[in-house]
Amino acid sequence: MTDLDLRPVGRVESSLRDRADAPRQGDEGAPDAWIVIDAACAPALAGLEAGADVIVLTWLDRADRAVLAVHPRGDVSRPVTGVFQTRSPDRPNPIGLHRVRVLAVEGTRLHVRDLEALDGTPVLDLKPVLGDVGDR
Amino acid sequence: MTDLDLRPVGRVESSLRDRADAPRQGDEGAPDAWIVIDAACAPALAGLEAGADVIVLTWLDRADRAVLAVHPRGDVSRPVTGVFQTRSPDRPNPIGLHRVRVLAVEGTRLHVRDLEALDGTPVLDLKPVLGDVGDR
Repeated sequence: MTDLDLRPVGRVESSLRDRADAPRQGDEGAPDAWIVIDAACAPALAGLEAGADVIVLTWLDRADRAVLAVHPRGDVSRPVTGVFQTRSPDRPNPIGLHRVRVLAVEGTRLHVRDLEALDGTPVLDLKPVLGDVGDR
Repeated sequence: MTDLDLRPVGRVESSLRDRADAPRQGDEGAPDAWIVIDAACAPALAGLEAGADVIVLTWLDRADRAVLAVHPRGDVSRPVTGVFQTRSPDRPNPIGLHRVRVLAVEGTRLHVRDLEALDGTPVLDLKPVLGDVGDR
């Protein structure tokens, strides 16, 4: 049984510095940003090329982990909803899930489109977007 | 800054007990299974109903976190590839990402289709599948 301690594999570099400035999702006006992978994890990038669509998992380190229900998108006209039915960053395990396009790979630095994570956010994992069963 | 310690919100109940028996992805022959959410997190389920498609994040607690590159799908005829370009469970932060259909909600127990996680796997989070921007 592995420990349940996360070990960041890198960090986000972005012009977004405040939760108030961040769009709610990457396709709602997020800037291009960089994902900087730790040198120790460089072998895990082998095969990743510009043009790939990848799923980035982050640790939303400014989240409130005690929140279990919210008004969706902060809209008080919408009924309070369990966080498992929303993408609220405030949730028991604040893992961010982001689909981005890789624009360039420069060593262990990835330039990516549409990432709404804040500057300094720890990166936990990258995964390929899965195609059809026969193409995996 | 939050700690980087995960706190499971529930567990998987499944007939899958061994990695050797598990399909590589949920749509490759996974059985129906149950997600059992801890009573303390019940408010986070408010609004979740049968028929919903949800993304389940799990902690693949039988993974090898030291692995950085693999032959994709264990096929030695394929070149060694960084784990960030594969869905290998063996990776620095072994977070499983599963898209499932909710078949039934019975209190804090969710019956779900197409979950390839093993029995006892810790559940970290549930998120809705996002629709178009205007429908969020």
